[in-house]
Amino acid sequence: MRDDARWLAAAAALAARARPLSRPNPGVGAIVVRDGRVVARGWTQAGGRPHAEAVALTAAGDAARGATLYVTLEPCAHRSARGPACADLVSESGLARVVVGCMDPDPRTSGAGIARIREAGIAADFLPSPACARSLSGYLVSKRLGRPEVTLKLALSLDGCIALTSGESQWITGAQARAHTHAMRARSDAILVGRGTLRADNPRLDVRLPGLEDRSPQRWVLTHGPVPEGWRALSSPTDIFRMEGVLHLFVEGGAKTATAFLAAGLVDRLLIYRAPVLLGGRPALGDFGLSALAQAHGQWRLTERRQLGSDTLEVYDARNPTDSSSES
Amino acid sequence: MRDDARWLAAAAALAARARPLSRPNPGVGAIVVRDGRVVARGWTQAGGRPHAEAVALTAAGDAARGATLYVTLEPCAHRSARGPACADLVSESGLARVVVGCMDPDPRTSGAGIARIREAGIAADFLPSPACARSLSGYLVSKRLGRPEVTLKLALSLDGCIALTSGESQWITGAQARAHTHAMRARSDAILVGRGTLRADNPRLDVRLPGLEDRSPQRWVLTHGPVPEGWRALSSPTDIFRMEGVLHLFVEGGAKTATAFLAAGLVDRLLIYRAPVLLGGRPALGDFGLSALAQAHGQWRLTERRQLGSDTLEVYDARNPTDSSSES
Repeated sequence: MRDDARWLAAAAALAARARPLSRPNPGVGAIVVRDGRVVARGWTQAGGRPHAEAVALTAAGDAARGATLYVTLEPCAHRSARGPACADLVSESGLARVVVGCMDPDPRTSGAGIARIREAGIAADFLPSPACARSLSGYLVSKRLGRPEVTLKLALSLDGCIALTSGESQWITGAQARAHTHAMRARSDAILVGRGTLRADNPRLDVRLPGLEDRSPQRWVLTHGPVPEGWRALSSPTDIFRMEGVLHLFVEGGAKTATAFLAAGLVDRLLIYRAPVLLGGRPALGDFGLSALAQAHGQWRLTERRQLGSDTLEVYDARNPTDSSSES
Repeated sequence: MRDDARWLAAAAALAARARPLSRPNPGVGAIVVRDGRVVARGWTQAGGRPHAEAVALTAAGDAARGATLYVTLEPCAHRSARGPACADLVSESGLARVVVGCMDPDPRTSGAGIARIREAGIAADFLPSPACARSLSGYLVSKRLGRPEVTLKLALSLDGCIALTSGESQWITGAQARAHTHAMRARSDAILVGRGTLRADNPRLDVRLPGLEDRSPQRWVLTHGPVPEGWRALSSPTDIFRMEGVLHLFVEGGAKTATAFLAAGLVDRLLIYRAPVLLGGRPALGDFGLSALAQAHGQWRLTERRQLGSDTLEVYDARNPTDSSSES
């Protein structure tokens, strides 16, 4: 069981390579293991096909016979014009066993994938994997809630400011933190800023990392007014329910936009880049409607902390009944 | 040399036991080492006497012969009605060697301690020790700058707030963080709050840790007005130059007081207790006079980070020419 969990976590790490180019399909990772060694691996390809299982089984060939397939998401049971059902591929593979880290909430699969594999005489286990759920969080949120997973980025001073009182804000964090933000953009389907930020900073919001320029996500602005070319408008946070093909939305601020998303209860993850400076300037957030401190506690869970030069990155996941980390 | 630095660090750790009851004398630690083993140790006693060296040498007795004494601060050269000069005690001890982690800026000693020991035929080395300088920071700041070392405590949300907009502030941080604050009070000679905090929270600001109740420090309030019984008044941060017998001042807020100390450039250390909550409420700091972001960078150096339950404690030392960490 412990080895199974580790192989699933390895498959989840592999799945990161699929994100976000696999859209509109989820980025899935798959590993074929025989006698404790990896014999093949795969992840969802750009545009969503081939699926991870197909890539891994093709690579494995005859080595799949008697082996175990670890896959982050239940193999799909629905045939499509774009490719065969993975449950069928798996059934014909000669595999001895399949271990699945997340059940697929898509009603066309949802248990039918595992059932078809078992019918073919292959052992199939669902082992709930937090690592797999996390790697699929955008997909799971989108299937469950009908909206993208929302990550709110805050680049802050120790005292929680995003600018001096004069408005000067470039830069609070250092080069490493800003490069990390570019990597996050590269992993997102869409990015959103407020009207004020668009006007003040005129952000390009593209990905400026060598080799990843093609990943630049859709650019959205929260506004009732006109938008520049290449941008789309959202008039309120709840409009994210109408975004199509967006699994991962990266909200970059400013304060009014961040506050509006928090007030709407539409933030799944916080990414806080914190610089070792005190500013006494403009706060990151306005009043988003808390009426008592008790409401504030227990909402956020620290899931990652790392140093980026002299800045610190902290990742907090929302702890609400609909958040992806409660996936099992 | 590396072993010497380790023994000095051990002596510095021991010195923590003297703080703050040794006042007005610095809390010093001393270790007698022979053949790589500790044969005796001592630290400054309550009220400042006996000194650490006297305690350690008395405990060592004949075992001091041929041994090495590691002491965080240069042994004093000035005789007093309250006890002999440590340099004389050391000279008569039979020690083979003395290693000192900090020179004493007190003009009555300042090099004269080491000189007298060498005259007695004992090897005496000054090995600059960051651990010793840190353990003596209150004393060193006080001797150099004529004021206490100032530690500013901030208990914050992720977004840098100290209360909801309603003013509700109890509690943002949890029980472990608050117990740590009590331990910090127990290590301070004086505590200071603003008038608003005194009125709103009516803080007792005493030490509520079993066995440490007698450590409760002097209570000061930043105000031009009258003060309650048991409190003393400071009308501006620069009045700390007139505090007597205070090596360690712990400033607990609120926002106006914290801002006033930062504006005056009178904060040596930040203690930030941060709870994993977002508040969108009252900011920790007001504008303290930064006119450009460039002025904010490079001022604070992270020296400690630890988890206190779900809260995080971070300690930042000021990086200015007068800060204690530049001691050598």
